This record gives sequence, structure tokens and C-alpha cells, in this order.
Amino acid sequence: MKKAIKGNAVIGQSGGPTCVINQSLVGVIEEIKKHSEITGLYGALHGVKGMLEEDFIDLLKEHKSTLEIVAQTPSSALGSVRKKLTKEECERLFEIFKKYGVHYFFYIGGNDTAETTHIINEIGKGEHYELRSFHIPKTIDNDLLENDHCPGYGSAAKFVACAFMGNNLDNRALPGIKVNIVMGRHAGFLTAASILARKWEGDGPHLVYVPEVPFDMDQFIADVEKTYRTYGRAVIAASEGIHDEQGNPIATSGERDSHGNIQLSGSGALGDLLAGKIRSALGEKLRVRADTFGYLQRSYPGIYSIVDAKEARLVGRKAVQYAVSGNLDGSVAINRIGEGDEYAVETFLTKLSKVAKHTKSLDKKYIAEEGNNIKDSYLEYVTPLVGELPEIGRLEKFLIPKK
Amino acid sequence: MKKAIKGNAVIGQSGGPTCVINQSLVGVIEEIKKHSEITGLYGALHGVKGMLEEDFIDLLKEHKSTLEIVAQTPSSALGSVRKKLTKEECERLFEIFKKYGVHYFFYIGGNDTAETTHIINEIGKGEHYELRSFHIPKTIDNDLLENDHCPGYGSAAKFVACAFMGNNLDNRALPGIKVNIVMGRHAGFLTAASILARKWEGDGPHLVYVPEVPFDMDQFIADVEKTYRTYGRAVIAASEGIHDEQGNPIATSGERDSHGNIQLSGSGALGDLLAGKIRSALGEKLRVRADTFGYLQRSYPGIYSIVDAKEARLVGRKAVQYAVSGNLDGSVAINRIGEGDEYAVETFLTKLSKVAKHTKSLDKKYIAEEGNNIKDSYLEYVTPLVGELPEIGRLEKFLIPKK
Repeated sequence: MKKAIKGNAVIGQSGGPTCVINQSLVGVIEEIKKHSEITGLYGALHGVKGMLEEDFIDLLKEHKSTLEIVAQTPSSALGSVRKKLTKEECERLFEIFKKYGVHYFFYIGGNDTAETTHIINEIGKGEHYELRSFHIPKTIDNDLLENDHCPGYGSAAKFVACAFMGNNLDNRALPGIKVNIVMGRHAGFLTAASILARKWEGDGPHLVYVPEVPFDMDQFIADVEKTYRTYGRAVIAASEGIHDEQGNPIATSGERDSHGNIQLSGSGALGDLLAGKIRSALGEKLRVRADTFGYLQRSYPGIYSIVDAKEARLVGRKAVQYAVSGNLDGSVAINRIGEGDEYAVETFLTKLSKVAKHTKSLDKKYIAEEGNNIKDSYLEYVTPLVGELPEIGRLEKFLIPKK
Repeated sequence: MKKAIKGNAVIGQSGGPTCVINQSLVGVIEEIKKHSEITGLYGALHGVKGMLEEDFIDLLKEHKSTLEIVAQTPSSALGSVRKKLTKEECERLFEIFKKYGVHYFFYIGGNDTAETTHIINEIGKGEHYELRSFHIPKTIDNDLLENDHCPGYGSAAKFVACAFMGNNLDNRALPGIKVNIVMGRHAGFLTAASILARKWEGDGPHLVYVPEVPFDMDQFIADVEKTYRTYGRAVIAASEGIHDEQGNPIATSGERDSHGNIQLSGSGALGDLLAGKIRSALGEKLRVRADTFGYLQRSYPGIYSIVDAKEARLVGRKAVQYAVSGNLDGSVAINRIGEGDEYAVETFLTKLSKVAKHTKSLDKKYIAEEGNNIKDSYLEYVTPLVGELPEIGRLEKFLIPKK
């Protein structure tokens, strides 16, 4: 282990925002104040884009009271970006880092962000310039390798769980078939969280479709018909990332971002397509509706998991501790060390290359054999991450005998 | 005024649920317990449908603790229905009322519900059977005549305001053009509530389109382009009910319910259409996204306005008080008697025919001359109905001089 080098740090936020991403930012800020090795902390506006344009702010000047409110505020306070650096941009970045005396680089985001951190780190080694690069995990998709779960997931899962709780009650009141599309490009974790909404016998979601299982339209229609026959209604959770055997999305606009990801969110296309298929197959007179939860899932103020907020703060603080303890680079990861009431986590530092680019899938053990539902055992995994849900009740319904 | 007649009461919930519709139900139950004139309270499952099928439950047997939780639970606890009665059904209904000794009829819902209550009431007069019929207001659309505002609106407005707060932050972090579709068939009240999200200079929604102003696609594209040029981004609120000069919806599936209403909700069609038009006009490379908030707006657990919850309880209790005080029929309405910190309401009983069927529009004084925004003066109207919003913050951003 090398001794910590004296110098400035740069921090950025990248990729889709979450409700707790600013907890990690504030965690970094408060921890850096404790360590004299890091002399200045520059916040880059809109991630690497801001770094290249030298759009920096002095984060150590921010008031403590401001930071506490910012920590509770959804969406990246520094601004975000989806940008893959070219070789030329990486070289320019190092010129800028040298100019500003930056020896610490913290980047908060998902696997694309980890990849960017990894690329910058590798180039740094070739440049013979000491840059300590750390990736701080964040994603509502919960799909980072090495991590038991990811900061941002618990809060988004809470939003989705509450949405399904309300929607199940709505659908009970006015029965019909309801399709809800949940975020999650490659992994079904967020869609799986919908089962937290089940409280009483017959509660939805009755069917759950995740990207881990190839989607078959005929089977889907058969599932919906069977559910409707059983309950006189159906609430369906489907991930935006569902695709056929060949990996083609069921519905998409075809747009791609600079990391090569196809646009799935920000459109009602998939929900409308599924609702249309149900209507054609089961009858035009059926009440079929689709909602796409969209961006609300990742930035709704006031709906967050307390555990998630704490852990997001923790990974920010830990990144700084690793950096000044002689670690040269890495991605902060979360390990679960207790179950149920004993739930607790610890962090560890893993290689950037292990988290970069790749995605973790929902374990098959949680998926029903038929591929159309999530098993109750998933509740053990997800409940501690989400915490308490609003209390809901129902009438006991003392029937009056018919006359 | 006639003396209260001794007999049973029937209550039903009808139309789209809200987050506080059960407050009104519980208000009726707790008030009826105080008045010996009403001997039994039958809850009809799924409104008039349950009445016709004699699906009644004994609401006076429900435990107080159950009722308190139900009051806080979104969506109609009795189940709902969208049903217009035929003449034959009305006659059968009276046979059933006679059989069960029902002399009081309470129906919680919007203007279609008021219409059904009015029809039943008129037939009752012809039948020479004393039935006291009362409509209890509920609608997230806020479009009932005679009322300053309607129970259900404040809570849905809070959901919409929070959604725009988060979405504005999301759009600041990852700039682009974002279209959000808000519920509201004929009236723009709920869409107008989006302006509660504006906190700082440049905050969205930057453009707001309500059904009270005929929608012109060319003007819309010009508005969006201008906004994007000014802010480098645009957050747009549009009501699902926007339509052209001739009254044709901009996008619809064509489906109608039994009251003749065209289906607008439960589809992403309008948002996707607007996003597509923007993309074609301003460039395919632009980041354009659309979300349709959908049913979450009316049934999201835990997000409700405290004032709205109180007033929803109040109109339920008042309906019973009017009924036993000698009033024969009517719709409970809300009048505002104080502004700002002095905000307070009183209820009065108005004629069923005055509330039935027709809808109230957003006052033109709140709509910007250009027809593409809501004036700040609307905040005076809407703020007391919504109450406190979650606190959000932002960094002060002490800029570091470029080197």
C-alpha cells in the first residue's frame, strides 16, 4: 500500500439519477473534510463533460445545512451525463487534472460509469501520473456485479412497491386488466420489487415478467387469460427490458445512447403494445389499461428508503477512506452480512474491471418455473432494502344476507 | 323541512378512485352512529351494480381501528363502478330499497355519480317512496360545479407537484425535452398544479397545456423550440384532455365508457405522439422523452394532502347531518371562506341537478394569454389545498475560476 498523495480531488455524477445519489456525494464531501491529504474537492458539473470543459465548483465551501438538504434531494445535484470518452478526450482530461493538481477521482454511477472510471484509471497508469480512481456505486437497476445490492435500488423499489399497492387497490375497485411497465434494461430486480405490494390473498401483481426470461407473446396472453378467469382482473408487472429469445426488445424506438444502449424509457410503446395484444386476443370490450412508470421511479421526492439513503451515504464516505488509506483504485461494493432483523452491510473495495460494463441478473432461484412470476423468497432479499411501506387497510366486509 | 324519517341507509362509491375517497366513507359511518334516525348502514359493493345485485355489507359492524386505516387507504374500499342505470334498473333498485327498508341513499363520486344520484332521486319522487338522496363530491379532476374545489383534488395535485419537482431535477441533471401527461379529461386543474413544482429561476414545467385552450400542434412545436433555446431543456405539462378547435382529442384509442366518455387514461399514446412530433420537427438526435403519469395520480399510498383528507371526511359527515336535519336531497358542496393562512372552508347543500353531468373549467384568469402556461396567481388558489411539499435543495455552486 502506498501512502496517500497530497492533492485535489474531482468528483462527478454520471448516468441516470436516483433518489439517493446525492447522499453519496455528501458522504464524499463530509469524509474528505476529515482528511488533510485531500486539499480541495472540485465538483464537476455534468460528469466528465464538465471536467473536459473545466466546469468545476468548490464543494468544500458548501454549507453543512445546504448539504443536508441536498442529500435528501433526488437527482444528481452536480448534473449528470451519459458520455463515453474518446482517446483524445482522455488525454485532454489528464492535462486538466495535472493543471488543477487533481490526484483523486471519484465517479458516482452505474456500470457505464465504472467503465469510464476504469478507462481513465488505465490511461493514468500509462501517463505515469498518480491518479487514484474510485467508482461509487449507484443504480436503481441493482445490476452491478460484486454488490449484494446497489444504492438507489431500495428507494426505487419502494416507489414501485407503493405504486403497485395503490394500483392493485385501484384495479380491485374498478376491475380490468392492467399492465404496468417498470424500469430495468437488463435486470428484473426493480420489476421483482412489485411483489412487495401483495398483502392479501388475490392481490396483484398477479404476473411478473423480467428480462431474465425470454418473453413469449402467446404464453403471455395465455397467462393473462388464466389470471383474468381466476380473479376477474389482472395486474401485471413487466420490465421495460423484456425481449424475445433472440434478445430483440418487444418494443423500442430504436434510439441508442453513446454507450450503445437502446432507448427503452420515456415512451409508453411497450405498455400500449401489450395492452393492444391483450385486447385483440381477449376481446375489445375488456377494460385493458397500461401505465409506464417512467422517470418517476428514479426521482420522486419524499419517497425513499431510509436504509438505502444510509448506505448511499456510506459508500461515499468509504470511497474517501479507501483512497486515503493507500488504495490506488477500485469500486466500492456492498456485502450483506446479516439477514432479516439482523440485516447489516459492510463495504469492500473491488477491481474496477469487475464492475465495469457488465451487468448482474436476478438470480433464477427467485423466478417462478413458468417464468411469469417472482417467488415469495425474493421478499427476504428485498424487504430490508426497502424498509417500511405505508399502512393500508380494508373493510372486514360483514355481509348482509340477501333478502 | 320535513322531520327525518326512520330507516336504513345505503352508501356506494362510484367512478375513478382517489386517495381520500375512503375518508368520505368513514365520515358517513362515524356520523351515522350519532343519529338514531338512521338504523342501519349498508355498504354497496361496486356502487349501483352492488345495489342491484343486493351485495351489501354492514358498515356499522366495522371496527373503529379498521375504519381509521381504511380512511388513509387510497381507492374505493367498497369497490367502484362506472354505470349508467337504465329505466328498468332504476325500478328494480326501488324494489330493493323498499325490501331493505332503505330511506337514505349516499353516493360518493364525481359528476357522473351526481347524475346517477339525481336520476334515482327524481324517480323516487314519482314512486311516492321517501328516499333521501345525497351526492358526496369526489374527483381528482376538480371539475364539479358549485364547489370551490373537490375532495380528491388536493392529494392528486400533491402527487403531480412532487412528480414535476423530481422530474424537473432529473431533466436539469440530464437535459433534454420531457413531456409529462397529466390526468384531466375536460378541466386543466390537475395539470395546472404542476406549477407548484417551480422553486428556482428556470425550473419547469416551462410550458403547460390544458383542455381549456384548443391545442395547436404548430404553436406547440414553436413553444417547445423557443423554450429549448432559452433553457437548453424543456419540461412540459400537458393534460390528457387537450383537443383541437373542433374538440377532437389529439390522441385517443376511441374507446368509450357507459357515460359516453372517451378513454384517455391508461395509454401512453398522447405523450408518445407529442414526443414524436417534437423529434421530427426539432431533430432526431434530440433527447425527447414522454411520461404519462396515469393511474398513480389517483391512488398512490402515502402521498396525500392533509387538508384534502380532512375535507373529504367533512363532506361525508355533513351529508349525514343534512340528511337527518330534514333535507330531502342534494349534493354537498365546498365553499372557501378564507385565503392564505386564513384558509378555511364551509359546506353547503346544493341541488343535485346543479352538479350532475356538467363540468367546471379552470378559470381563464389563471391561463397565460399565449395559452401555453399557467400564471403564478394560480398558486394562491392551489397551495392551501395541497399543503406542504417535500423540501428539496441545491448546491450553492461556488465556481472555481478556469485555469
